[in-house]
Amino acid sequence: MAHMNQYTIATLASHTALQILKGAKDEGFKTIAVCETGKRRVYESFGVADEILEIDSFRNFLSIEGELIKRNAIVIPHGSLVAYLGKEKIMQMKVPVYGSKSMLDWESSRDKQRQWLAGAGLKLPRLFEKPEDIDRPVIAKLHGAAGGRGYFLARDAADFKKKIASRNATDYAIQEYLVGVPVYTHYFYSPLTKELEIMGFDKRYESNADSIGRIAAGDQIAVDLESSYTIVGNMPLVVRESLLHEIFAMGDRVVAESQKLAAPGLYGPFCLEGVITSELEYYVFEISARIVAGTNPYVQGSPYTALKYDVPMSTGRRVALDIKRAIEAGKLSAIVENIH
Amino acid sequence: MAHMNQYTIATLASHTALQILKGAKDEGFKTIAVCETGKRRVYESFGVADEILEIDSFRNFLSIEGELIKRNAIVIPHGSLVAYLGKEKIMQMKVPVYGSKSMLDWESSRDKQRQWLAGAGLKLPRLFEKPEDIDRPVIAKLHGAAGGRGYFLARDAADFKKKIASRNATDYAIQEYLVGVPVYTHYFYSPLTKELEIMGFDKRYESNADSIGRIAAGDQIAVDLESSYTIVGNMPLVVRESLLHEIFAMGDRVVAESQKLAAPGLYGPFCLEGVITSELEYYVFEISARIVAGTNPYVQGSPYTALKYDVPMSTGRRVALDIKRAIEAGKLSAIVENIH
Amino acid sequence: MAHMNQYTIATLASHTALQILKGAKDEGFKTIAVCETGKRRVYESFGVADEILEIDSFRNFLSIEGELIKRNAIVIPHGSLVAYLGKEKIMQMKVPVYGSKSMLDWESSRDKQRQWLAGAGLKLPRLFEKPEDIDRPVIAKLHGAAGGRGYFLARDAADFKKKIASRNATDYAIQEYLVGVPVYTHYFYSPLTKELEIMGFDKRYESNADSIGRIAAGDQIAVDLESSYTIVGNMPLVVRESLLHEIFAMGDRVVAESQKLAAPGLYGPFCLEGVITSELEYYVFEISARIVAGTNPYVQGSPYTALKYDVPMSTGRRVALDIKRAIEAGKLSAIVENIH
Repeated sequence: MAHMNQYTIATLASHTALQILKGAKDEGFKTIAVCETGKRRVYESFGVADEILEIDSFRNFLSIEGELIKRNAIVIPHGSLVAYLGKEKIMQMKVPVYGSKSMLDWESSRDKQRQWLAGAGLKLPRLFEKPEDIDRPVIAKLHGAAGGRGYFLARDAADFKKKIASRNATDYAIQEYLVGVPVYTHYFYSPLTKELEIMGFDKRYESNADSIGRIAAGDQIAVDLESSYTIVGNMPLVVRESLLHEIFAMGDRVVAESQKLAAPGLYGPFCLEGVITSELEYYVFEISARIVAGTNPYVQGSPYTALKYDVPMSTGRRVALDIKRAIEAGKLSAIVENIH
Repeated sequence: MAHMNQYTIATLASHTALQILKGAKDEGFKTIAVCETGKRRVYESFGVADEILEIDSFRNFLSIEGELIKRNAIVIPHGSLVAYLGKEKIMQMKVPVYGSKSMLDWESSRDKQRQWLAGAGLKLPRLFEKPEDIDRPVIAKLHGAAGGRGYFLARDAADFKKKIASRNATDYAIQEYLVGVPVYTHYFYSPLTKELEIMGFDKRYESNADSIGRIAAGDQIAVDLESSYTIVGNMPLVVRESLLHEIFAMGDRVVAESQKLAAPGLYGPFCLEGVITSELEYYVFEISARIVAGTNPYVQGSPYTALKYDVPMSTGRRVALDIKRAIEAGKLSAIVENIH
Repeated sequence: MAHMNQYTIATLASHTALQILKGAKDEGFKTIAVCETGKRRVYESFGVADEILEIDSFRNFLSIEGELIKRNAIVIPHGSLVAYLGKEKIMQMKVPVYGSKSMLDWESSRDKQRQWLAGAGLKLPRLFEKPEDIDRPVIAKLHGAAGGRGYFLARDAADFKKKIASRNATDYAIQEYLVGVPVYTHYFYSPLTKELEIMGFDKRYESNADSIGRIAAGDQIAVDLESSYTIVGNMPLVVRESLLHEIFAMGDRVVAESQKLAAPGLYGPFCLEGVITSELEYYVFEISARIVAGTNPYVQGSPYTALKYDVPMSTGRRVALDIKRAIEAGKLSAIVENIH
C-alpha cells in the first residue's frame, strides 16, 4: 500500500508556494520548489523547500515534469501556475496534480463561469455586452489582466469609451461597479470527508485603489486621479458572525453545482471574490478554483481554522492534510490526477 | 463546594459565540450553542459546541431558559443577545448570566451613558439637541440602528434636514463628526483580581464607508455617493505604544465611575469606541458593556494578550477563565447573576 | 567565558518596548523597563519587565546609565530612544547598546541618507530643493516632525507656499508625492550568520489620512478637508509573493552599501518605508536603522517568521536571539557597543 514517504509535494515558487511547502513539511512531506534560474533566495531563506529545482522560465514548467515524476512529486497548482501555463498546458500535464481539472473549462471561460455561479444561486453583478448598454458605473476587466492590472472604473458609457480607447484593448468584460466592501472568502472542500470548511477571509491591498482614499478629495480632483487595481498584498479580516450561515450555504451551492456541471466537480481550496453591500448582500464577481494569495496572512492559521484545528492550519497545510489522509485511506487517486 | 464540571457555558449562536464557546472549551467547560432552527451548520462545522439547542427565533431566547437551567448553564451575553431580547427581557432572565445587569440602564439610555462617560473624564463628541443647532459636520445615529445601519453623515443643518426627511425617522442622536481614525479598545476588568487588562484593538470594516475611498474623488462626485456604516467585519490593529498609558487610565476611570453609579459596577469585557485625531486625542462616542465583535480577529489571542498569557487568550476565553477562577475561589456569585 | 545570565536586556518604556522585553524574556534574559515617573502601569500590566526603573523624563535617559551598567544591562535602542536623546547623546552613551552607531550619521542627515539609499540602487522619490521647483504633487516633511505629525500634502508650488506660510516653518524637505500603497518592510541582518531575513510587513494607521477616505468626496470638499499623517498604530500586511525576490535584493544592497560607507555597517532590525505603485515599483522614502513600531502586530511572530522559526519570533525576540547567540559564540562585542 502507498505510504506518504513515497511522495513529495512540489509547486511553482511563487504566489502561495511558501505556505504550501511549509504546510506540506508540517504534515510530514518532503518538498520541492521549482524556481526560475537565479531566484532561489526566497525559498532558501524561509527554509520551506527540501529541494530546489531551477527552470529558465515559469512558462517552461513542463520541461521539469520528468524530474518531478522521478521524485514521485504531487504538484499543488495555484494562480501563478495557471497564469504561466494556461489551460492547454495544464490539461497536458503528466505529473500528478492535486485537484480536479474538470472545472478548468468552467472557470476559464467568462460565460461558463457566470453560468456556474448563477446556477449556484449567487448574486452576481450585472454584465454589459456593449459599451452602449452601460447605464451605471462599471468596472472594465481586460482579458488576461493578471493580478488586477489593467482594470479600470468608468462612470458611464462616454467615460468608458474614452478610457478604453486610450488603452487600445478589444477584449474586455464590463461589469456593474457595486459599491460595497471587498470580501474574499477562502473555502476548502474535501471529497474524502464531504465537508465544506471556511478557512478564512481577506481583503486585497491594491495599488492605487487602497491608497487614493488617503488623499483629500479636493487634491485628488486637482490632479485628476484615477483608480487602478494592481494587487500588492493582502490583509486579514473577519466577518460578522451572523453572515457565516449564508456564506457556508453559498459555498455548498457552488460545490453542488460544479458536481452537476462536470464530475467530480470542484474540490480542495477555492475562493469567492466579491463585495458586501450596506444592505449586507454578498455579490460575487469571480471564483478562483484553487488556493488564493489571500490565504497568505494565515500561515499560522486563521481565526476560523483555530476554532477547529489544534495545530496552525493554513490552507496550504490543509491541502497536504487532505493528501495525507487520502494516502492513508488508499484513495489518493480520488483527489490527485495522473496518479497510478 | 462547587466544581467547574457542574457548569456549562452557553450563548446565543451569533456575534461572538464561536470565540466564547471555543474559549470555554479551552478552559475545560462543556458548551451549548442556542441556534435558530435550521441554522446549526456554523456551530457544528467549527466544533465549538458540545450541544446545540434550537429555538424558532432569537427573540424567544427566554423559551429555552428551563432547558439551560436544567443543564446548569451560565449564559455569556453579547451584543446580539441584548439586541434581540432588549433590556426588559434581559432583566427578567432567570438563568445564571455572566456579568452585571447593574450597568444596563446606564448603557441603554443615551443620556445616562453620556453622563457615565463624561463622569469618567473621557473626551466626547459634541451632541446637538436640535437640527437647528448643527454648526459643523455631524453623524446622525437613528435609535435602534443595530450594526451601524441607518447612520449617516451630514455636512450642516440643511444637509441633515434633507437626509432625515428621506428617512422618515424621528428618534435619532446628532453627534459632531470628528475626523480621526476609528479605534476600538477591548478591555477586561475582573472583580476577582481587581485588575483592568487591555485585550486588544480593532477597526471595524463598514460598508460602504471602508470602500468608497477606493473610488477616485471625481468619480464619487459624478455619481453623488454617500457614506453608510453597516458593520461587515473587523480588522486587527495595534496602537502606538505611548498611547497605552492614557488608554489604561481611561478604562480605569470608566470602571471606577460605574462603581459609583451602580454597584457592583462594570466588569468582564467592555469596549470603548471612538476615533483618535491627528492631535492624538482619543474621542469616545460609545461604550459597549460586554464582549464586542471586534475581538473576533483574536481567537488565537492578540499581540497584547500574547505578552501576558502563555496560552492563546481570546476575550471569550478570558471570560471562561474568570468563571473558572471564581468557581475555584468559591466566589461565583460575585460575577454571575442568578446563581445560588 | 561570558554567560547570558550575566546580562539584562533594558529599553526605554515606549515604542516597541513591550515586544523587546517579552522577546528577551522568551530567550531567557532578565529585563528592565526604564519608565517615566508614574508611568509603570503598562509595563507592570503586561508582565514583561523583571525590574522597572523610573526617570523623571525620557530626555534624561543618561541619568540612569550608572544603574544600568551596574546591572550589566544591554540597551536595545528604538525610535523613541533616538527621538528623545538625539544623535549627540546616543553617541555619548557608555552603557552597552545593541546595534552599530556607525550608521547614525548616515541616517540622521537627509542628504547622507539619500546618498546611502541611492548608492544601494533603490528607487527614490524626487526631491525639490526650492518651492519654485515644485512641478507635481509633493509631500512636505518638517524637520523633527516625529511620528508623521506636521507632514502635509501640496498639489503644486502655490499650494505649498500657502500651507508652509500658515505653519511658520523653515526647515523642511519637499518630496514628490508618489501614488501607491504604503508598504513598510521589516528586515533583520545578523552579522553572526551574515544572513538577511525578512521579518514581515505592515501598513501604518495614520490620522487623519487613513480615515478621510471614509467620508464621501462631496462631503470632504464641502468642508475643505486636508490630509494629515500622525501615526496612531499599525496593521498587519503580507505582500505578493513574487515581489519578495526584489525585496530581499533591496535589503541586501542597503546592507552592502552601509558596509562601504561606515564599517561595520548596518545590522540588527531595520525598515524600508515606501509605496508600491500600480506598476509594482517599490519607491522608498526613508530607512529606519533599528526596530520600528510596525513590527508590533507580530508579538506572536509574523506569517514570514512562522515559516522559518518553530517559536513565535517577533523582531524584539530576534534581537535577543542574536545577543544570546553572540554570547554563546563569545562574539558579543561584534554586535554590542561599549562591551568589554
